[in-house]
Amino acid sequence: MIAAMLRGLELPLELTDLPVPLANKNEVLVRLKAAALNKRDYWITKGKYPGLTFPSIPGSDGVGIIGSREVIINPGLDWGNRPDQFSPEFRIIGMPEFGTLSQWIKIPLTNIYDKPAHLNWIEAAALPVCGVTAYRAMFTRGRARPMDKMLVTGIGGGVATFALLFGVALGMEVWVTSSADHKIDLAVQHGAKGGVNYSSAEWAKDLSATAGRFDLVIDGAGGNDFAKLPQVMNAGGRMVIYGGTRGEIDGLSPQRIFWKQLDVLGSTMGSPEDFKSMLDFVNQYRIKPIISHVFSLREINAAMTVLAKGEQFGKICIEIPGD
Amino acid sequence: MIAAMLRGLELPLELTDLPVPLANKNEVLVRLKAAALNKRDYWITKGKYPGLTFPSIPGSDGVGIIGSREVIINPGLDWGNRPDQFSPEFRIIGMPEFGTLSQWIKIPLTNIYDKPAHLNWIEAAALPVCGVTAYRAMFTRGRARPMDKMLVTGIGGGVATFALLFGVALGMEVWVTSSADHKIDLAVQHGAKGGVNYSSAEWAKDLSATAGRFDLVIDGAGGNDFAKLPQVMNAGGRMVIYGGTRGEIDGLSPQRIFWKQLDVLGSTMGSPEDFKSMLDFVNQYRIKPIISHVFSLREINAAMTVLAKGEQFGKICIEIPGD
Repeated sequence: MIAAMLRGLELPLELTDLPVPLANKNEVLVRLKAAALNKRDYWITKGKYPGLTFPSIPGSDGVGIIGSREVIINPGLDWGNRPDQFSPEFRIIGMPEFGTLSQWIKIPLTNIYDKPAHLNWIEAAALPVCGVTAYRAMFTRGRARPMDKMLVTGIGGGVATFALLFGVALGMEVWVTSSADHKIDLAVQHGAKGGVNYSSAEWAKDLSATAGRFDLVIDGAGGNDFAKLPQVMNAGGRMVIYGGTRGEIDGLSPQRIFWKQLDVLGSTMGSPEDFKSMLDFVNQYRIKPIISHVFSLREINAAMTVLAKGEQFGKICIEIPGD
Repeated sequence: MIAAMLRGLELPLELTDLPVPLANKNEVLVRLKAAALNKRDYWITKGKYPGLTFPSIPGSDGVGIIGSREVIINPGLDWGNRPDQFSPEFRIIGMPEFGTLSQWIKIPLTNIYDKPAHLNWIEAAALPVCGVTAYRAMFTRGRARPMDKMLVTGIGGGVATFALLFGVALGMEVWVTSSADHKIDLAVQHGAKGGVNYSSAEWAKDLSATAGRFDLVIDGAGGNDFAKLPQVMNAGGRMVIYGGTRGEIDGLSPQRIFWKQLDVLGSTMGSPEDFKSMLDFVNQYRIKPIISHVFSLREINAAMTVLAKGEQFGKICIEIPGD
């Protein structure tokens, strides 16, 4: 089989011919049809991820067939029994286990679900990591309700665009922030009410003046802009953190947090229940993921370059070639 | 009747003879037997509180009699119907409404509860503001469970000492921080397992090495030490903020918050349900509040001086003289 192999840090991925893996007990073999990239895949090539092993096949998002059954893979392994946190053994396929940038993958049977019927292979491949992360952040942690007003910061990345789609589907009023005006325009085309460019020092005041106050924020950035968010929140609001691309938060007011009785809630990936609920939600509301780019597995390094630049709006998907 | 009146900022309280108030519809008159001070009373004399009006009678904690019924007063007015947040009309007796440093007070009947029978007047007067604040922070917001390990920062203040007592009563393992070693010793005498002095730059590491990690933190300080708390938390832990005496939080890591799936939860005072539940808890576990000082109402300015210095461990209580 063909797979994209990473032999060490800072190296391009290398298309390699490997033997098809052998499934162990309680595992199945999936003939992959499509995969998708995540920021995680970029961090792994830069060595900024714990527990790296080489050679390795990256890729955490995958869809394919088992015989004639069309399936989607939950990329989380060994979450454990507690809904509020994962076990110390929790990990995501694609490192250290071989991932989805490959024609075949072996995977525990319990990680296999039916592919949503309204999605093609590329669309379905966009779902797993970012779909479950957005779902857990918004619903399991953030307790999103249809009448809530939601702010999604840094629109464009996978989790943020799913949060936008889920919120719009649910009938929420959704606003966005970005450092790129054209991403705000794209978000509005996908149902956002509006947005502000956070390059302006006055973005929080501008947002309040335009949009009013929010019940729910979905943030993957952190940084000093996070400290401005409490001022745009309604009392009882929830601010969910699923990432920290802009680093440490300075200048956070405890007074705003306790007086408004805000919840600041960390969220990472999702439990098996979250994954199942995410698929149910996607099926019920016939959610169509936003696809930014599609590459063949043979063009994987071009795809990784787009990922590194972070200019996508939605997911970067990979077609896996037939035999 | 005699009452302690505040005629303006930075002035001492003035014992004044006033007519007994008249109860309006749905109000009752309480003949007060004891009151207690809160940091709020100090901030009011310094003008650091919104909506100040003069002249005014401070005091938010009060117990007394209605005929022969021994009662305790819920100091929160017009919380509203939502358990997760108070209404815009919410306020606490003692500003602008006349408070408990007085022989008589008029109060809505719905704010009246039976005084816990196992407490004397002074002990019962210590309960209302700090008891309900600690209860909501720990239970309603922080979801405290008997098997949790809890850290109470800045032990000595009213809310912190109630959190200690509630946790010890429930069988929790409770640790404390303070800038004063003798307050840590006092906390241990009241059932804490141990504590660290946060004057040391290494307090968080020292605490982890001694105590392990925590499921729940009750913090009234904020400031830069708050940013060290995530490293002493277990995954799925809750960090409740009920105050911010040390100001803005710098250097907070979003990675620690999302990876450990922490909850940072603001909490202020409590709803009528919280007040009722706090009294039930105090009765069930026969909690005895920690009393730091007792003054007569005639010595109110000496009491205010102790409050201003912040050297108390537990509550500063006020005996209200008879006619």
